Amino acid sequence: MTVQPFVVGVGMTPFGRMRERSFESIGQEAVLKALKDAGVERAQVDEIFCGSALTGRSMGQRVVRDLGMTGVPITNVENACSSGSTALREACTAIAAGRAQTVLVLGIDQLTRLGGGTIPQVETDLDPNLGMVMPAVYAMRARRYLSERGATSEHLARVAVKAHEAGRLNPYAQYRNEITVEEVLASRMVADPLTLLMCCPTGDGAAAAVVTTQARARELGRQPIRVAATALQSGVYKTGYRDMVQSELTMRTAKIAYESAGIGPEDVDLAEIHDAFAIAELVYYEALGLCESGGGPALLDSGATRIGGSKCVNPSGGLLCRGHPVGATGIAQVCEAVWQLRGEAGARQVRGARVALTHCTGGGVAGLDHGSCAVNLLVA
Amino acid sequence: MTVQPFVVGVGMTPFGRMRERSFESIGQEAVLKALKDAGVERAQVDEIFCGSALTGRSMGQRVVRDLGMTGVPITNVENACSSGSTALREACTAIAAGRAQTVLVLGIDQLTRLGGGTIPQVETDLDPNLGMVMPAVYAMRARRYLSERGATSEHLARVAVKAHEAGRLNPYAQYRNEITVEEVLASRMVADPLTLLMCCPTGDGAAAAVVTTQARARELGRQPIRVAATALQSGVYKTGYRDMVQSELTMRTAKIAYESAGIGPEDVDLAEIHDAFAIAELVYYEALGLCESGGGPALLDSGATRIGGSKCVNPSGGLLCRGHPVGATGIAQVCEAVWQLRGEAGARQVRGARVALTHCTGGGVAGLDHGSCAVNLLVA
Repeated sequence: MTVQPFVVGVGMTPFGRMRERSFESIGQEAVLKALKDAGVERAQVDEIFCGSALTGRSMGQRVVRDLGMTGVPITNVENACSSGSTALREACTAIAAGRAQTVLVLGIDQLTRLGGGTIPQVETDLDPNLGMVMPAVYAMRARRYLSERGATSEHLARVAVKAHEAGRLNPYAQYRNEITVEEVLASRMVADPLTLLMCCPTGDGAAAAVVTTQARARELGRQPIRVAATALQSGVYKTGYRDMVQSELTMRTAKIAYESAGIGPEDVDLAEIHDAFAIAELVYYEALGLCESGGGPALLDSGATRIGGSKCVNPSGGLLCRGHPVGATGIAQVCEAVWQLRGEAGARQVRGARVALTHCTGGGVAGLDHGSCAVNLLVA
Repeated sequence: MTVQPFVVGVGMTPFGRMRERSFESIGQEAVLKALKDAGVERAQVDEIFCGSALTGRSMGQRVVRDLGMTGVPITNVENACSSGSTALREACTAIAAGRAQTVLVLGIDQLTRLGGGTIPQVETDLDPNLGMVMPAVYAMRARRYLSERGATSEHLARVAVKAHEAGRLNPYAQYRNEITVEEVLASRMVADPLTLLMCCPTGDGAAAAVVTTQARARELGRQPIRVAATALQSGVYKTGYRDMVQSELTMRTAKIAYESAGIGPEDVDLAEIHDAFAIAELVYYEALGLCESGGGPALLDSGATRIGGSKCVNPSGGLLCRGHPVGATGIAQVCEAVWQLRGEAGARQVRGARVALTHCTGGGVAGLDHGSCAVNLLVA
């Protein structure tokens, strides 16, 4: 690609349950914050992408209509949990191809009004219809992982505790409370061994980013953050195969991102990863190369992935604590990465952060673990 | 853009009511036909785009899973009636940016199982909730157009008759019967002055295309068709403004397409245009520059837009006769354009066709006429 894309502005709503608001108003809040952050006028945006998993037709048009921002190309993309990241990738490619100069990327979902995440949609989805909804899939992963890695439920609980340690410092997080290992273990069992506090909440929210060329970024006041890689892959289907303890899909996607950016996992200062359930963080530590295969529990135990550690994971609080309005998550991760790389993350700042990784994966389709995975690398 | 995209294979299902089939099987039929037509193996496809307006999550993944084609980047896009064309545009940009070499583009919807086109979805859509569903919008356009242009309901009927004259020669068309002006006028009134036979049917179907680079196209046996422009725009919202007789959105989108391709309306040998209702064809004749402003009825009367005329419009039968499974339509138009430009359209062949235009518009969002519009130019 000839033209490098840069993020010059980000903004998001606090995540949480906002059933009383329209999704238009939720999306508009994120859009206006991102534009203000970038110092970009509405009329300067020449293309818009909207990532949303659940919210129906012409979502981007609906959100920006009352901002007077229609008239430009608007493209709505969907890739389940990777919807926001997929929108970012299309935006970056539009810039790389010279098709657009200043692109608004929006991620949005409103689960309280428009449906939850694990309800089977179509009769041909045999797995969820037979009970393999997402908590069940991750519970099976957890059982297998704990067994193979010699880890315990306490490791899972400590992932949730760590998420809240960070998230309580994040004004955008759905939860702002501290929790203890005992509380996590004692919370209601959802799918053994996953208790309620080991599962991300449902909620609502939107996040937006302004992406532009290097030349345009230089004209704007803000420190530009380079998007060094936007990798997207889908899962491989084989009868009888499940992507359980070693996530082939995340490993493959990360490899593409690292190679295309010329950056290795050793260079990553912080990562926002897809901890939809506590077990996911341990699995993806390994799959993203943040530790060696089998080293997930030890990496967690070392404290390196806490704020202040050498390889901070989910300083935002992650999906477990910041929340997971499906289509918004990928862009919320980019918001956190940008704030961290600019040194604007306040009490949860990762000191000296230069390279951030963001990771989404999801879209369970019968036998496909999972439908789509995105890994982005952002560089200060 | 540096790399030009070429269509090297197309395929589609017949359109119609296929409630007894799964949408996966409908999509797979189109995919396999397009790959066979291109002479491309499944494993050679390095990226997939799926355009669908109504069919829910991870549609592309669901369709290609059992073909063993997952593992590559899959991106689902939605833009109401322009969903298929939007998918094509993203595919062409991925090629132009050097991100992909051989891209499969699928358009699919199954209205008999997954919902119709005009039912209001969200409570904030005031217009459809108050009765401004699509047939009503087009009926108002028709009333105004007939009044301003001095045309009659018979002109509308003749658009439908012309659509069936062509569509009855198209093995993929939902209807294969001839109809008369009298029959059209006597059919049930849907929204005055639009009778049933002046409205496109609901139905199911899929269409697919293989897009690649010029270098790769040369290696394949098929005559490559160059995608000279893929323009996408959204409507402008102003209180009290309706895009009625002169479609500002289609005019603006067409202007971008013509200018970027260096092709004018006078060069167009055939056009596949969005005749969701009979009035639309007359409105878009003018908006696409196929005649001067006000010249729609005269162009129809001249016979130039029939098969055998100098400026054939909708040789496939268009939405009125071939059918309109929403997300599939944009790619079905590309199928027809490719067959015509290759000289493979049989009894409905436009002789000597060198330049084809395809046009989609739709996605009525309260006050927005319309949410998205796409104009593509394809050159033999």
